[in-house]
Amino acid sequence: MSQPKKVVLAYSGGLDTSIILKWLQTEYGCEVVTFTADLGQGEELEPARKKAEMLGASEIYIDDLREEFVRDFVFPMFRANAVYEGLYLLGTSIARPLITKRCVEIAQETGADAIAHGSTGKGNDQVRYELSAAALNPDLKVIAPWREWSLSSRTDLINFAEKHQIPIAKDKRGEAPFSVDANLLHTSSEGKVLENPADDAPDYVYQRTVNPEDAPDTPEFIEIGFEKGDAVSVNGAAMSPATVLTKLNELGGKHGIGRLDLVEGRFVGMKSRGIYETPGGTLLLEAHRGIEQITLDRGQAHLKDELMPRYAELIYNGFWFSPEREMLQAAIDHSQQHVTGTVRLKLYKGMARTVGRWSDHSLYSEAHVTFEDDAGAYDQKDAAGFIQLNALRLKLLAARKRRLGS
Amino acid sequence: MSQPKKVVLAYSGGLDTSIILKWLQTEYGCEVVTFTADLGQGEELEPARKKAEMLGASEIYIDDLREEFVRDFVFPMFRANAVYEGLYLLGTSIARPLITKRCVEIAQETGADAIAHGSTGKGNDQVRYELSAAALNPDLKVIAPWREWSLSSRTDLINFAEKHQIPIAKDKRGEAPFSVDANLLHTSSEGKVLENPADDAPDYVYQRTVNPEDAPDTPEFIEIGFEKGDAVSVNGAAMSPATVLTKLNELGGKHGIGRLDLVEGRFVGMKSRGIYETPGGTLLLEAHRGIEQITLDRGQAHLKDELMPRYAELIYNGFWFSPEREMLQAAIDHSQQHVTGTVRLKLYKGMARTVGRWSDHSLYSEAHVTFEDDAGAYDQKDAAGFIQLNALRLKLLAARKRRLGS
Amino acid sequence: MSQPKKVVLAYSGGLDTSIILKWLQTEYGCEVVTFTADLGQGEELEPARKKAEMLGASEIYIDDLREEFVRDFVFPMFRANAVYEGLYLLGTSIARPLITKRCVEIAQETGADAIAHGSTGKGNDQVRYELSAAALNPDLKVIAPWREWSLSSRTDLINFAEKHQIPIAKDKRGEAPFSVDANLLHTSSEGKVLENPADDAPDYVYQRTVNPEDAPDTPEFIEIGFEKGDAVSVNGAAMSPATVLTKLNELGGKHGIGRLDLVEGRFVGMKSRGIYETPGGTLLLEAHRGIEQITLDRGQAHLKDELMPRYAELIYNGFWFSPEREMLQAAIDHSQQHVTGTVRLKLYKGMARTVGRWSDHSLYSEAHVTFEDDAGAYDQKDAAGFIQLNALRLKLLAARKRRLGS
Amino acid sequence: MSQPKKVVLAYSGGLDTSIILKWLQTEYGCEVVTFTADLGQGEELEPARKKAEMLGASEIYIDDLREEFVRDFVFPMFRANAVYEGLYLLGTSIARPLITKRCVEIAQETGADAIAHGSTGKGNDQVRYELSAAALNPDLKVIAPWREWSLSSRTDLINFAEKHQIPIAKDKRGEAPFSVDANLLHTSSEGKVLENPADDAPDYVYQRTVNPEDAPDTPEFIEIGFEKGDAVSVNGAAMSPATVLTKLNELGGKHGIGRLDLVEGRFVGMKSRGIYETPGGTLLLEAHRGIEQITLDRGQAHLKDELMPRYAELIYNGFWFSPEREMLQAAIDHSQQHVTGTVRLKLYKGMARTVGRWSDHSLYSEAHVTFEDDAGAYDQKDAAGFIQLNALRLKLLAARKRRLGS
Repeated sequence: MSQPKKVVLAYSGGLDTSIILKWLQTEYGCEVVTFTADLGQGEELEPARKKAEMLGASEIYIDDLREEFVRDFVFPMFRANAVYEGLYLLGTSIARPLITKRCVEIAQETGADAIAHGSTGKGNDQVRYELSAAALNPDLKVIAPWREWSLSSRTDLINFAEKHQIPIAKDKRGEAPFSVDANLLHTSSEGKVLENPADDAPDYVYQRTVNPEDAPDTPEFIEIGFEKGDAVSVNGAAMSPATVLTKLNELGGKHGIGRLDLVEGRFVGMKSRGIYETPGGTLLLEAHRGIEQITLDRGQAHLKDELMPRYAELIYNGFWFSPEREMLQAAIDHSQQHVTGTVRLKLYKGMARTVGRWSDHSLYSEAHVTFEDDAGAYDQKDAAGFIQLNALRLKLLAARKRRLGS
Repeated sequence: MSQPKKVVLAYSGGLDTSIILKWLQTEYGCEVVTFTADLGQGEELEPARKKAEMLGASEIYIDDLREEFVRDFVFPMFRANAVYEGLYLLGTSIARPLITKRCVEIAQETGADAIAHGSTGKGNDQVRYELSAAALNPDLKVIAPWREWSLSSRTDLINFAEKHQIPIAKDKRGEAPFSVDANLLHTSSEGKVLENPADDAPDYVYQRTVNPEDAPDTPEFIEIGFEKGDAVSVNGAAMSPATVLTKLNELGGKHGIGRLDLVEGRFVGMKSRGIYETPGGTLLLEAHRGIEQITLDRGQAHLKDELMPRYAELIYNGFWFSPEREMLQAAIDHSQQHVTGTVRLKLYKGMARTVGRWSDHSLYSEAHVTFEDDAGAYDQKDAAGFIQLNALRLKLLAARKRRLGS
Repeated sequence: MSQPKKVVLAYSGGLDTSIILKWLQTEYGCEVVTFTADLGQGEELEPARKKAEMLGASEIYIDDLREEFVRDFVFPMFRANAVYEGLYLLGTSIARPLITKRCVEIAQETGADAIAHGSTGKGNDQVRYELSAAALNPDLKVIAPWREWSLSSRTDLINFAEKHQIPIAKDKRGEAPFSVDANLLHTSSEGKVLENPADDAPDYVYQRTVNPEDAPDTPEFIEIGFEKGDAVSVNGAAMSPATVLTKLNELGGKHGIGRLDLVEGRFVGMKSRGIYETPGGTLLLEAHRGIEQITLDRGQAHLKDELMPRYAELIYNGFWFSPEREMLQAAIDHSQQHVTGTVRLKLYKGMARTVGRWSDHSLYSEAHVTFEDDAGAYDQKDAAGFIQLNALRLKLLAARKRRLGS
Repeated sequence: MSQPKKVVLAYSGGLDTSIILKWLQTEYGCEVVTFTADLGQGEELEPARKKAEMLGASEIYIDDLREEFVRDFVFPMFRANAVYEGLYLLGTSIARPLITKRCVEIAQETGADAIAHGSTGKGNDQVRYELSAAALNPDLKVIAPWREWSLSSRTDLINFAEKHQIPIAKDKRGEAPFSVDANLLHTSSEGKVLENPADDAPDYVYQRTVNPEDAPDTPEFIEIGFEKGDAVSVNGAAMSPATVLTKLNELGGKHGIGRLDLVEGRFVGMKSRGIYETPGGTLLLEAHRGIEQITLDRGQAHLKDELMPRYAELIYNGFWFSPEREMLQAAIDHSQQHVTGTVRLKLYKGMARTVGRWSDHSLYSEAHVTFEDDAGAYDQKDAAGFIQLNALRLKLLAARKRRLGS
């Protein structure tokens, strides 16, 4: 790889990416453009601008991507009811493709020939970032300093920072007790004090949900409105995608909903333990399943359920911008045309539960299912023929078994 | 179909199957053998014996099938983490094959030429019963009185009962407000007051779980031990399969865990709404996923997740005794060899959550995942090659897009 | 079901559907509208008009549906490389939805309240016809005379025909030695002399392909051009969908290509044996796979292969007009955007084999694959990291095995 | 990686692995144990012994693995009807795990601390070899000289060989026009003259099948006997696994059967073009499908078809010794219990076609399928109910569409 001349760095403003900013300049003698995204992580971004300026960034991008994030990434994923390994709502996985997409665009705008990220060589995020980049612009170099440099301990990093006049917040001198990633969909925590999966996660790990024991003692009932598979209102008030998710986060967080303690299989081969908080997403998944219950045909619903694990795996592994993810999305989106209506959820002490749902698009037919007289909607005698033909192959198998004795 | 001479009836002792008992005698002039199973539904069975005697049953079978039910049906199903349509734990579905199996055996023992059940022509249970019978003995006739007789209203049934001196409990004269099925795994309620899926289920519908609001204000932590995928102990005390499930039901019920309000797609084509209570099963599913997190390889886990919806659908649709369910079971069971260890759950106000897990069979490697120095267990530089080759096809796609302009 | 007043009959002009025409009039006292489709079955249709007139049809529709058939049914299906049970190209299955669609439209145009078909109660075609009708107009009655009437032998049919002055071709007095269905995609033969799957099908069964032994002794090489997954030219000459298929039938038939002797599992539960001739379709499948080899990404191709059996099963079972087939179609069609290019086939003595393919949309990169110096397109050292990370979980499994002794 | 002291080399006796033998000695100063397997590649192995001796191998293993290869690798794979990307019979992929397994065993027997192979860094074989090794003994080093050394041209190799007195066959001085891999299942050819997928493969590439034009002008009919999914006899003569495959190769080769010209997607990311000859395997696949047609239940058959692409991909990618391949194998093997019987094939001019099949285990029921009177085996009226209930959800969808106008 030839030396990069200008690099777009996904820059958080924190110590680690500040060190990277400086390291890129010193290591490659290149210009660095910083890009800081507001994905709803809940931090002030202006300090990042100041820090980037101070550290000599040649250009500084700070973008509010919250609406795009929810509209074009989170919502399409929730149409699939995607969960990884049965439980994980993919909060980190779904943010990376968007960050990369914007990095690639900025590289184009600024004439940069490389992009860089601050993910380590052990995790999934490096893969997600670099696969997205490969799909969006195969000619851009991607620099992953954590895989390249010789800074192998906290002390090395602190020394590098001091040597280059990078400001170090007091609480960043020592090791953090665990590592955090946050955006509008979730907060994840992992590493250090969380590394033994036998031990309960300490209370102080949780950051955006109250402990269920501390949640209100009275349940709260809310209504989420859907159109074509996407949430469009809460309690009757229409809202933009990011506003819906913000509102659901507030409601879920208040009731201690969306905590997950998971050991998962990483794409790079080892298992890791994460603590996830996805308050709004947990409500959204429950409600989306609730509205699908009455608006999706059984054939659609079962096919979706069968495709889902593959779809979730693709997103987890970093293949958002792959043609097979798009194929699955085409199938999933096709199913959502009538996923329109309202779901009523009960929120209480860590739990969200569907307790009612209604829709003009409902396929539920009280006329067919009723225990009362159905006025001829359904002829119970049809069931005899239905069962006979479904049973036929089983009978032929049983006859063979009898004939052959096994 | 020629006239049956001797029929084995799946007999609950309730009014409906008592009417069937009599109706079979009068309609076909045949002997009726009653079979009443203890599947943990929590009812006295001796009254069923007395009633069957009084109504002229020629033979009476009352069997405690609880251990067989949990060991050979519930546990194999939970190895798969089976849920139907994302949520339903299949509590009714999994009991039918066992009931039918025993009916077929009793027919063999007593020389009966037919079996009969009390399920209606609108539901799934008729299908499950009759497909199981077809697979186990293709020559037995199956009689489904609800699809045959002309008793089309509650009044007709009461009149028939009175005419034939069938005792009618006072509270059975009127229509029940909803219909119930129960066994050691779950209680389901459906019909009548539950038929509008927009309306909250009334509190009195729930029968084996307390309302979360009434559950203890303090969380309870429990440990479930697993061997080869099956739960074998609770809080360190070894237990038989049915005892484990009984214990978990007690714990889950006390904390209001396992309530589900679902609209589901029936095999016979319409949607129906059910209220399910599966306290112990909900703990079991959560804990089984918890122990699999550290003992299953990612390849196994993902394959299981992909096969699961099909497996659950087969059980829901009544194909327990089908060769394709057995094929899937063979695959699933193969994966459970090392699913041995202990999971710690937190139970609180309707929610069960894994908070710790440990096992001698664990594949989790702190050495590999650690944020600390890993002493060479994992070479971060390998990730670069890993990503490069995973990215190659995406780069070729991107190059084509650039070449062709789309 | 109330009495139908006006029925649209899928009418072939043959003896059986002529009997049905008359039977509908006599049984229901209803008007009958006949509909005869040209699907490329290779028969004169004018005689059907005359016969329908003579038998008192109130209206007569004769439509050339060949282009619609290939464009909207055959081609979409071939985009999926659909084969049922590994071998069957679904030639009959794919024609039924179109026939039904047109019957339903004609019912709408003529104010008919029912439609009728001539398929028996043992086969798949009744299911395909009636499921399509249900999906297109749930209120239309569907009449299946073979399941209703009392004409249970050839003699009964002949007697009915004679009684109602229905002309009987001399060779139709006796039983046909087997039953035939034909359209532009295939000819199927089944029943009677073919019922023992151990016996070779007699030579006279084959109708549109020469015996490979009688095919030309010299191979013929042809080129098929594709655009977005559909064949658009043969040997450089652009052609309409039906014309392409007609041309390929001619070429395949001449070389004895596309014969299949199959025992298949019917949706109604039993196995049946069929002899299929699909000359053009066999060339099309081979060539489509050939062009996909260079224009589809591996991720797309493998996902398509995994979805295909389900897709084929849906078509076989009659669920063309189902939302889950449409979902799969959306995914498949999404993959075909770049399936454009040319395939060279060798045709010889019953066999069609891809021997070359090229495309402006090709993803094949000689630069990457070459045994020669690749000028840095691919760094072989990347493979080491790729393998290490793919191996990691296998090593952790092996370490566990060693630790535990199994 | 520390320096290896003793290496087991998968040694063919050819020039390339002879160079590797020497290179390992000179590069690492280690002992080299050679292992040469007879997998039916059709070469004398004694020359390999002499050459290894001459080049200073410290121990020499030459094993006839043909029976183990067919019994434990080829046959289990054919039970699945495995084909990669619709066409490739996986002849190379399935041999690698066995070669590696034996290398690992020999390392254990001889106290070696490393194994080595002669596959390049661009292909799939390195992955298959190294993943198998990881699964079988995670502590063994694996050396892949082609990824390590600096010999980057033919000239370099020849120079190295001359310098170290490695004998060079006259026809090996220049570049081979293409690269070959062979075993009892297949011969593959790729590279050089084959690199342009638009060009026909030259005739001289084909090595174990005659050109169909040169095959006998008269068809040959053969019978293959199966027991539990495996071929056990040809034309009535019982044979061991390797003998069956040898016999089928002879028959297929004589009739020009089993040639394939394929562009495939490699696991390492690029597409490559291969010419495969799998004469016996092509007969085996056709016949296995033939016997499954009458002995497998539809539920089993369809599930197998859906699992197959994943299973084939696992083998292609080198995951034979993975737990998910074993899970799938458990499912597949479960289905083969009754796959016992005989298939009659017609072999002619490049084509093998099933023309008859019979079995005591047959599920085909002439009584059910017959066009003749079936004596009540099947009640056609059952089909009406069967269709009604299958249609119900489609009718509910159609009613919604009408209600909502879309």
